[in-house]
Amino acid sequence: MATTHLTIPARRGAAARVAAGQRVKVINTHGSQVVDTWAFNAREVTEWMSMEASRAWFLKLRAAVGDTFRTNQRRPILTLVEDNSGGAHDTLMAACDLPRYRLLGVEGHHDNCRDNLHAALGALGVTVPATPSPLNLFMNIPWTPDGTLAWAEPVSTPGSYAVFRAEMDLIVAFSACPQDILPINGRTGQTTEAHFVIE
Amino acid sequence: MATTHLTIPARRGAAARVAAGQRVKVINTHGSQVVDTWAFNAREVTEWMSMEASRAWFLKLRAAVGDTFRTNQRRPILTLVEDNSGGAHDTLMAACDLPRYRLLGVEGHHDNCRDNLHAALGALGVTVPATPSPLNLFMNIPWTPDGTLAWAEPVSTPGSYAVFRAEMDLIVAFSACPQDILPINGRTGQTTEAHFVIE
Repeated sequence: MATTHLTIPARRGAAARVAAGQRVKVINTHGSQVVDTWAFNAREVTEWMSMEASRAWFLKLRAAVGDTFRTNQRRPILTLVEDNSGGAHDTLMAACDLPRYRLLGVEGHHDNCRDNLHAALGALGVTVPATPSPLNLFMNIPWTPDGTLAWAEPVSTPGSYAVFRAEMDLIVAFSACPQDILPINGRTGQTTEAHFVIE
Repeated sequence: MATTHLTIPARRGAAARVAAGQRVKVINTHGSQVVDTWAFNAREVTEWMSMEASRAWFLKLRAAVGDTFRTNQRRPILTLVEDNSGGAHDTLMAACDLPRYRLLGVEGHHDNCRDNLHAALGALGVTVPATPSPLNLFMNIPWTPDGTLAWAEPVSTPGSYAVFRAEMDLIVAFSACPQDILPINGRTGQTTEAHFVIE
């Protein structure tokens, strides 16, 4: 089967079409880069991977290998089939956006995952009417017994990866998160490229 | 100030306009009824209360008194100002919908919160292009240290309530959740009306 290697440029997005049954391997090339991830039904893009429907299905705050993400129509869309990254993949937090950086004190432009999503879809000629809550690969958001959340440093390492099986024909979209104020991409605030492979 | 008392009929929705500064009191009249809750900017309804943006703001799985929910533009929309219900208000689970009931084995029609939301907004002449993840008032979804979730029975009691302050002119929408298969509305599966007051 043909294999396609693709780059998610630092602080930018990328999207690609994936056929049902293909596997998508997302590689944390430099080890500490959060990759916001979305998936859309290729035939009807208002059907998308839904974190709230997925949590209601697998009954966990975080997916484990074998768990299937569901769409807003409750259909299977992506199954996590391999993961050697430590498993810290957040389902709770919104994609960063310009208003978020305003709250963090940024003036002027700041790259952000929301814009990256829509630009990456736009490059495929696709528009969607909202910004779904993303699957934040490699993003470490721990919780306490009383439900307190935190922005923690990554537990992934260079070259670690997560692999998904496509459960329908879909469009996958990624953003190499440009967050350089909170420590989610590591304490240095360095943001890097990442890669993905469709096989 | 004028006070408006309104009913959320059993298994149905209701919506109303609320001015900035008004308070909305949601009453669990019979004690064990989950009330899915949404809020939309009255001037631009594609700006809505976002659970993923709110968790990223108050850094909790569940809001406590004093916490402010944020929109998908990161602006304050509702602040929880009083709560005598035990505080089990879920932010994690999608509104129930017909595909959800199919997965639970229901054939034919089943009332559902998604349809109730859109019908309630429609009665005000409002349409929205997606179904935001709801604030599930009185819905008890516990988590474990390893992140396992469960559908638990309510901890609220008859007449207990939560009160919110509107932080902008908004449209609030509710659904008295018709879930009668899982125990979230109590072990008997009885679904009831609830009430709200705008003051």
